[in-house]
Amino acid sequence: MKNKILLKSLAGLCALAAVACGGGPGPQGSVAVYLDESQPIEKRVEDALSRMTLEEKVAILHAQSKFSSAGVPRLGIPEVWCTDGPHGIRPEVLWDEWDQAGWTNDSCTAFPALTCLAATWNPEMSALYGKSIGEEARYREKDILLGPGVNIYRTPLNGRNFEYMGEDPYLSSRMVVPYIEEVQKNGVAACVKHFALNNQEAHRHGIDVEVDDRALNEIYLPAFKAAVQEGGAWAVMGAYNKYKGEHCCHNRYLLNDILKRDWAFDGVVVSDWGGTHDTKQAAENGLDMEFGSWTDGLSWGASNAYDNYYLAAPYLDMLRKGEASTATLDDKARRVLRLIFRTAMNTRKPFGSLNSPEHLAAARRIAGEGMVLLKNEGGVLPIDLGRAKTIAVVGENAIKMMTVGGGSSSLKVRHEYTPLEGIRAAAAGKAEVIYERGYVGDVTGDYNGVKTGQDLSESRSEAQLIADAAAAARKADAVIFVGGLNKSNHQDCEGDDRLQYGLPYAQDKVIGALAEANPNLAVVIVSGNAVAMPWIDRVPAVLEAWFSGSEAGNALADVVFGAVNPSGKLPFTFPVRLEDNGAHALGEYPGADKVKYNESIFVGYRWHDKEQLKPLFAFGHGLSYTAFAVGNVKADRTTLAPNGSIRISADVTNTGDRAGAEVVQLYIGDEQSSLPRPVKELKGFQKVSLNPGQTRTVTFEITPGMLQYYDDAKGAWVAEPGAFTAYVGAASDDIRGTVEFELK
Amino acid sequence: MKNKILLKSLAGLCALAAVACGGGPGPQGSVAVYLDESQPIEKRVEDALSRMTLEEKVAILHAQSKFSSAGVPRLGIPEVWCTDGPHGIRPEVLWDEWDQAGWTNDSCTAFPALTCLAATWNPEMSALYGKSIGEEARYREKDILLGPGVNIYRTPLNGRNFEYMGEDPYLSSRMVVPYIEEVQKNGVAACVKHFALNNQEAHRHGIDVEVDDRALNEIYLPAFKAAVQEGGAWAVMGAYNKYKGEHCCHNRYLLNDILKRDWAFDGVVVSDWGGTHDTKQAAENGLDMEFGSWTDGLSWGASNAYDNYYLAAPYLDMLRKGEASTATLDDKARRVLRLIFRTAMNTRKPFGSLNSPEHLAAARRIAGEGMVLLKNEGGVLPIDLGRAKTIAVVGENAIKMMTVGGGSSSLKVRHEYTPLEGIRAAAAGKAEVIYERGYVGDVTGDYNGVKTGQDLSESRSEAQLIADAAAAARKADAVIFVGGLNKSNHQDCEGDDRLQYGLPYAQDKVIGALAEANPNLAVVIVSGNAVAMPWIDRVPAVLEAWFSGSEAGNALADVVFGAVNPSGKLPFTFPVRLEDNGAHALGEYPGADKVKYNESIFVGYRWHDKEQLKPLFAFGHGLSYTAFAVGNVKADRTTLAPNGSIRISADVTNTGDRAGAEVVQLYIGDEQSSLPRPVKELKGFQKVSLNPGQTRTVTFEITPGMLQYYDDAKGAWVAEPGAFTAYVGAASDDIRGTVEFELK
Repeated sequence: MKNKILLKSLAGLCALAAVACGGGPGPQGSVAVYLDESQPIEKRVEDALSRMTLEEKVAILHAQSKFSSAGVPRLGIPEVWCTDGPHGIRPEVLWDEWDQAGWTNDSCTAFPALTCLAATWNPEMSALYGKSIGEEARYREKDILLGPGVNIYRTPLNGRNFEYMGEDPYLSSRMVVPYIEEVQKNGVAACVKHFALNNQEAHRHGIDVEVDDRALNEIYLPAFKAAVQEGGAWAVMGAYNKYKGEHCCHNRYLLNDILKRDWAFDGVVVSDWGGTHDTKQAAENGLDMEFGSWTDGLSWGASNAYDNYYLAAPYLDMLRKGEASTATLDDKARRVLRLIFRTAMNTRKPFGSLNSPEHLAAARRIAGEGMVLLKNEGGVLPIDLGRAKTIAVVGENAIKMMTVGGGSSSLKVRHEYTPLEGIRAAAAGKAEVIYERGYVGDVTGDYNGVKTGQDLSESRSEAQLIADAAAAARKADAVIFVGGLNKSNHQDCEGDDRLQYGLPYAQDKVIGALAEANPNLAVVIVSGNAVAMPWIDRVPAVLEAWFSGSEAGNALADVVFGAVNPSGKLPFTFPVRLEDNGAHALGEYPGADKVKYNESIFVGYRWHDKEQLKPLFAFGHGLSYTAFAVGNVKADRTTLAPNGSIRISADVTNTGDRAGAEVVQLYIGDEQSSLPRPVKELKGFQKVSLNPGQTRTVTFEITPGMLQYYDDAKGAWVAEPGAFTAYVGAASDDIRGTVEFELK
Repeated sequence: MKNKILLKSLAGLCALAAVACGGGPGPQGSVAVYLDESQPIEKRVEDALSRMTLEEKVAILHAQSKFSSAGVPRLGIPEVWCTDGPHGIRPEVLWDEWDQAGWTNDSCTAFPALTCLAATWNPEMSALYGKSIGEEARYREKDILLGPGVNIYRTPLNGRNFEYMGEDPYLSSRMVVPYIEEVQKNGVAACVKHFALNNQEAHRHGIDVEVDDRALNEIYLPAFKAAVQEGGAWAVMGAYNKYKGEHCCHNRYLLNDILKRDWAFDGVVVSDWGGTHDTKQAAENGLDMEFGSWTDGLSWGASNAYDNYYLAAPYLDMLRKGEASTATLDDKARRVLRLIFRTAMNTRKPFGSLNSPEHLAAARRIAGEGMVLLKNEGGVLPIDLGRAKTIAVVGENAIKMMTVGGGSSSLKVRHEYTPLEGIRAAAAGKAEVIYERGYVGDVTGDYNGVKTGQDLSESRSEAQLIADAAAAARKADAVIFVGGLNKSNHQDCEGDDRLQYGLPYAQDKVIGALAEANPNLAVVIVSGNAVAMPWIDRVPAVLEAWFSGSEAGNALADVVFGAVNPSGKLPFTFPVRLEDNGAHALGEYPGADKVKYNESIFVGYRWHDKEQLKPLFAFGHGLSYTAFAVGNVKADRTTLAPNGSIRISADVTNTGDRAGAEVVQLYIGDEQSSLPRPVKELKGFQKVSLNPGQTRTVTFEITPGMLQYYDDAKGAWVAEPGAFTAYVGAASDDIRGTVEFELK
């Protein structure tokens, strides 16, 4: 006998547990609205909110561990898990300690640094990047990826520039949107950072940035606006620094007025870790989720370790006393719920994947496409493996892991191909590769307790290292120096700025010795910043290779030996001297309590153009192993009606002997303006792949909106009638044709 | 200008990364079969398998950490995460250490021990239990819940009986099925354990169990068979012990022949942690996933820490050398993939919930319904709070947390209501509750590094403790002694058996002193096992309260003060003396290298019936605060055709003055048989709730299948024609009516 009679319908039991039953897949009960994916998200948000207690609402607004916030366990609303980005998925740390948790399933694919992505000038690469990193975040079950970063490159000393997309608001805007869109297709929120004006690491926790409204709107905000309005970012991270005297993580003007009101952002504002400083401001000024770095020294595993967070017990206390608005609380909770429905509770998201061959291929492809050939006299590059029998590789960066270090973007990869490994693998069987370190930068293979597995100790003197390097160079048919910065403190690393514009350690001396030893020298700079090149006239070839991820060495070898024809363009200016940069020329860097952006909108090439300074390498510059002619620049009309448009076209021809890609760049200058304007500003670009001899016509459409400036007197964007010039070229300092037109 | 032109269709990029694109929700590509939930699971399994490398297939068959196994990161197939059960979701431990990970989101609801659930004799409670614990497992994102346990209660000394469902195969079978069904509705696999013959903790890792085929099939396997065939369990855990000389985790006869061939089990066989001992046997004898307790001392966080697992590198090595069958490998991988599709990759599962009021209510309800009123002379219970002004509570178990300890089932709860707390809360404002410890069992409030938050240190002598307890009892109107076992080593705890049948510490002396001091004494036994009661004639009231979870104290107060009328029935016999138990009477316990089950099928009440031994308390026994008459037992016919059935009915009437529930029990005895058979065996039960004066008729249907025994000569189940007796009653020793019938 089966006791089927006893098994009365579970419906009776479900009456005891109405909500939870609602979540079940069976036919036994109606599903609660917030659990019903066929309902609109806003209806689900309201339903969930209506079921939550005051304490539950507050609980979802702050950290419960280093990288997570509580869900609503009673209602089956999941936790929110964040992961540092923006170049890969950070390894797991302990619940409440920064030490790694010792998991073995959290090796990721390290993608190239965002400067490298920006240097591709190819939104398709940005989409591929976002898709790939989004899949890795999803596989690791993360809900928020803390990236991408779009802070504008104001000074080459900013230690964190490598995590951003360069100096130009238009380029950053076009590159950030596909990244976000593709990440979020995985049910993972992109969290655009650091909003806003986090343009240096020096004094980052307290410095108050003074910037005029024009520069704020024209230079520092557009990429964030595009991320929110075009990319549809579900999260934004506040910056550490202050603006108008308030920390950016709870800054009324930036968060309430601009982001949430003007831009209609409906996602969550997340604090940078430890970026919250005041409960009342956090409550009122637009912060939605507080994360942090400290837990008041409470004991490990204590369930109240996060109670002292500004948006935890102190906020609850204010709410209970009627000193904080419950409407504002509800707004915050709604945003977090909306995020959860978009991510953790989105059952239609794909499963992602980790370390797939596709991801490694994407990392290699983006790295190769982002490398910028700055100089290449006499065809030193690519090195012909049919002719070079001995290749000397010199420089510590040829053997140093760059996926480890640099701060919160530090990663754990299954394997990183160093430049030397990549070069050796490509040259195997064809040329002998000899190596000399040349200089000593780092002696430990250790970062935050993560062993890189490298012993970089060295006993030779500086003079001996240089002599040995020069001797190797003399024996070789081709010499590759791999140096630059290295993600150690002050060398492109979060938390501090660089101390000098020049290369650190003895690199300049080594390069000088190599140039003397062998004219067949290529200098490869691994960095996320411009560096001084006092030796530039003595070195025939220079390649900017960036911090380029898991496949760094293979991608470098692709370029060095010609398997990949370089097509990257600089996303920021290389000044000759630091003083040629506007921030430094005008003296307000790094400040102390405050820093004033005296250069206003004249950042990067805008400064160089205005001051007619010749850069070391210009914004938009980048060579190829082939050559391109850009010409026949013309417009379909010369007057632009307020609702009209002008089409600018140009022909681009591959005049060399191998396939390659050119980025055709459109800049526009306002010839008559009530306010000072840059000589020209980037307003369009197209990357065109061409076989030898092939010609294609590229077309840009100019509309009046693209001609606007921000009128700080009116507090509005204005397109002022008058004369404009469209510049078409291959770099900001390499204009191949112009067209004048008039806005009516 | 928007660079829409540049954003060529992502389809091109997807071509590079075909599989991963398949996972995307967009319209851009066709979804790979294994990622397509509209496809049948078997088709998805084959598709995934066809994409996997040899190494990937092996990787999913063994642990990568204490509680997880790898997925296939390349293909986006998630990891499998297990959690200890069966009474709640175990707190997180470190990746590769048993220490707790210090998370603060992993406090769970502790449900009553499975003995308590079995004692409800109510499959609805089992469904409620499974639903609730399943929701907690799901919220904690676990894929496999390591439970329930259905090993048969062979001896009261087995340290792990509290995790099982008693001595009767029929009762266990009926109770295990709804638990599994409801757990699995959450997309969480139930893992029935420990398969099989794990009936003692002593020598558990090596002991070879010798049991005849009749006892194996009639007593030890039926609950597993019901779990698999009726409950549809997706996972089964092998036992530590041996059978037929092979460890049960890779036992050809149990796993390949019985479980997978005869029962057509299509799920995974998981090893108990560290229960694997041989690669060849593990490969060939039906083990699918190896988990363990050790990692060969390799360093923390080492990615190869699990390579030495039997089903890891050694298995891969055998496969590469052709010494292991790839068809068998594929069968294992298919089973794991099937599990993943049913759990981690089931996007239609609900979200679960944690510590919800519904779960705490379920824990309290099951605990209250499972408590068994063993004796209640003179209406000592319930205590009338209108009359008792002073209540003395005595005994350490009144103040000791029981959700912590006992081995792998140890939990972390947000709060456990101890008996004293529950009694104090219920008596508040009505009676004064005074407490005396009476005896000292434990001095630490510590288990595996988990603080219970209790200081149980004590400086008084045993004599003084007893004197103080007696003094308190003399002052009181009612006395409640709360003792029993306590989940310390040898006191109902995994890893060791009990050392004695009697109560440990000085409890018998304390009870004797209390009985002398105050006749109004109720003894509450907290345990998962029967205990000797040498004082039974001096104590008017005894309640078996079990280990009853988060709400233990509240549930106890419900029963003690009458808010809940007890309706639990014993799921196992309390013998007067240990020697009255078959295993002990015949001398084969605990064995050493091997143990022979000489008592064969005569386990529990079957032994007592056969030997005509009067138990202390019989299987099925349990009193109520009201009284029930069971009578008018009759059958609709007296002969049973081979394809026919007989309906037995009985009337049950509540003859007392309060509402209550009686469990009407049907036993059947075979009066003529070729082989020895028990006097009677449980074949049906129904729990009936009745108001005072109310009568209901219960009906049982008897079919020939229920009359079968296992003929070990034929190796088949046989229903032998002849005379049978149906016994209907309120306990195995309290039969109220019989019907004779004949099987044709």
